[in-house]
Amino acid sequence: MGYRIDCLQYANWSEKIFRQMRDGGVDAVHVTIAYHETFREMVLQVERWNRYFERFPELIMKARTAADIDRAKAEGRTAIFFGFQNPSPIEDDIGLVEICHDLGARFMQLTYNNQSLLATGCYEEDDTGLTRMGRQVVAEMNRVGLVVDMSHSAERSTLEAIEHSSRPIAITHANPGFWHPALRNKSDTVLRALAETGGMLGFSLYPHHLRGKTDCTLESFCRMIADTAEMMGVERLGVGTDLCQDQPDSVVEWMRVGRWTKEIDYGEGSASNAGFPPMPDWFQDNRDFGNIESGLRAVGFAEAEVAGVMGGNWYRFFAESFGPQ
Amino acid sequence: MGYRIDCLQYANWSEKIFRQMRDGGVDAVHVTIAYHETFREMVLQVERWNRYFERFPELIMKARTAADIDRAKAEGRTAIFFGFQNPSPIEDDIGLVEICHDLGARFMQLTYNNQSLLATGCYEEDDTGLTRMGRQVVAEMNRVGLVVDMSHSAERSTLEAIEHSSRPIAITHANPGFWHPALRNKSDTVLRALAETGGMLGFSLYPHHLRGKTDCTLESFCRMIADTAEMMGVERLGVGTDLCQDQPDSVVEWMRVGRWTKEIDYGEGSASNAGFPPMPDWFQDNRDFGNIESGLRAVGFAEAEVAGVMGGNWYRFFAESFGPQ
Repeated sequence: MGYRIDCLQYANWSEKIFRQMRDGGVDAVHVTIAYHETFREMVLQVERWNRYFERFPELIMKARTAADIDRAKAEGRTAIFFGFQNPSPIEDDIGLVEICHDLGARFMQLTYNNQSLLATGCYEEDDTGLTRMGRQVVAEMNRVGLVVDMSHSAERSTLEAIEHSSRPIAITHANPGFWHPALRNKSDTVLRALAETGGMLGFSLYPHHLRGKTDCTLESFCRMIADTAEMMGVERLGVGTDLCQDQPDSVVEWMRVGRWTKEIDYGEGSASNAGFPPMPDWFQDNRDFGNIESGLRAVGFAEAEVAGVMGGNWYRFFAESFGPQ
Repeated sequence: MGYRIDCLQYANWSEKIFRQMRDGGVDAVHVTIAYHETFREMVLQVERWNRYFERFPELIMKARTAADIDRAKAEGRTAIFFGFQNPSPIEDDIGLVEICHDLGARFMQLTYNNQSLLATGCYEEDDTGLTRMGRQVVAEMNRVGLVVDMSHSAERSTLEAIEHSSRPIAITHANPGFWHPALRNKSDTVLRALAETGGMLGFSLYPHHLRGKTDCTLESFCRMIADTAEMMGVERLGVGTDLCQDQPDSVVEWMRVGRWTKEIDYGEGSASNAGFPPMPDWFQDNRDFGNIESGLRAVGFAEAEVAGVMGGNWYRFFAESFGPQ
């Protein structure tokens, strides 16, 4: 059997969710451990995960390499990889890139929605591309094996990251704008540049990224994947569900507002729909990966293609990306 | 040829010193990266070392396991292990023990000279032994493979650490008090308890720990090692030179005073002898390990015993100590 890899989750972690990962046959998950956290605050999140690893060794394990996924699979556990959705944990210190990699970080977004020290986020009006520090940090990320993730970045910044990076980058959790023109979804230009450089796109199941949002059908989602495969090549595609299971609405507020404003910012939501939107009925939690797999078969993907999108393609990308250059 | 391992140095690191390590055939060095540093300040020291590893890959490499020493030896490099002379980098957070181990720390003193959150230092008047947090942290250090080092600790605290620790501990850099009764040297009671539990003693070459200080003879030093071998067993013995090469006197002041007092404290020195004392002429730097080796042979040690004291014993201890329990 192939791999099942989810390249983005940010759940309110619990034994229940870890057991659902096992029930869903999920071999590896890239989990977000920082949105706006400083270095020291991010370390507290690693400490929290270390306690999960100590408490639930039969369900999960810390992972650093693609080979760890095979070990996890053989032992019936889920391999957990860390990532940041913002470069806040490296503060203004390029030396922290290697330190964070040493602590297990394998993905870092150059921006969340706002301007960062490195690049421009997708909610800013003006996009000035990679900053001076941004170019230095991308090179350092390339050196140590920390993957550049541009899921929440603006167009020019994303294209410049693709061009400046000497290694393939990732958009771990977003969908094509041609299917659903959300601010967080990506243009054809970005998707083509990503594919041409060996990068990866992880399809998001966060309702604001879906055509029809919560009511999006599995068939529509899988047909979109087929259309994207035409454009990018199926081997460039994976899943990054953006599953935020069991999170209270206070957490989506932290994600959106952090400490950067005293005013409320609804991000992709609105005053009347401020919290986490309900997930589609065919993808409620980690037990539903089989539905996506069936949906891909139903729209005509061959078995090898299904296996690639469900995890094989991320496995190959992890194997090529997580070590020193 | 056997191993040459130095279990404590705190030099003003430079290419010159790294080249001297190679010239002296030194396979591994435990280097101090924290005296009074907070967690974040200690991380800056790891960053500094990461830059050394990047700049001088033909001379040194970061090491995490005993097996890394073999790799370094095969490649003609010196393996560098990190350690703290104070628990200040874990602050008041037991979760930082595993984080520090992940960053490469392999030894941590429970105290420098003063009372810490964990135990009592050798310069305090009253020694209350392991604190509540101290007992918890020793257990956590045992779990992850961070070695308890009591070189600068007071007698009762040291005996309680030996008793409470489920794994052998180390005194990386001190000498027996029976030879030279310095406050930092250790009683027969401590040395016997250390040996009975499989612990290790590293002999110091810091002049304040030597009989006759700077004028101590190689023969006197080696005869002391022979006497200690009678008491502890030769397999419990190694070298921890405490070499502080090329350091300006401002650094010995930081070691002694940190930020804990506004008054000057001379530690083992004095107002008239405040700086680093000159090293004995037979041990000036890393190129002089051969002198110790010859000295051990001259006082009658067999070849296998010499190899053990010069590094084989530390190698065995590293192999047993640096992984999870």
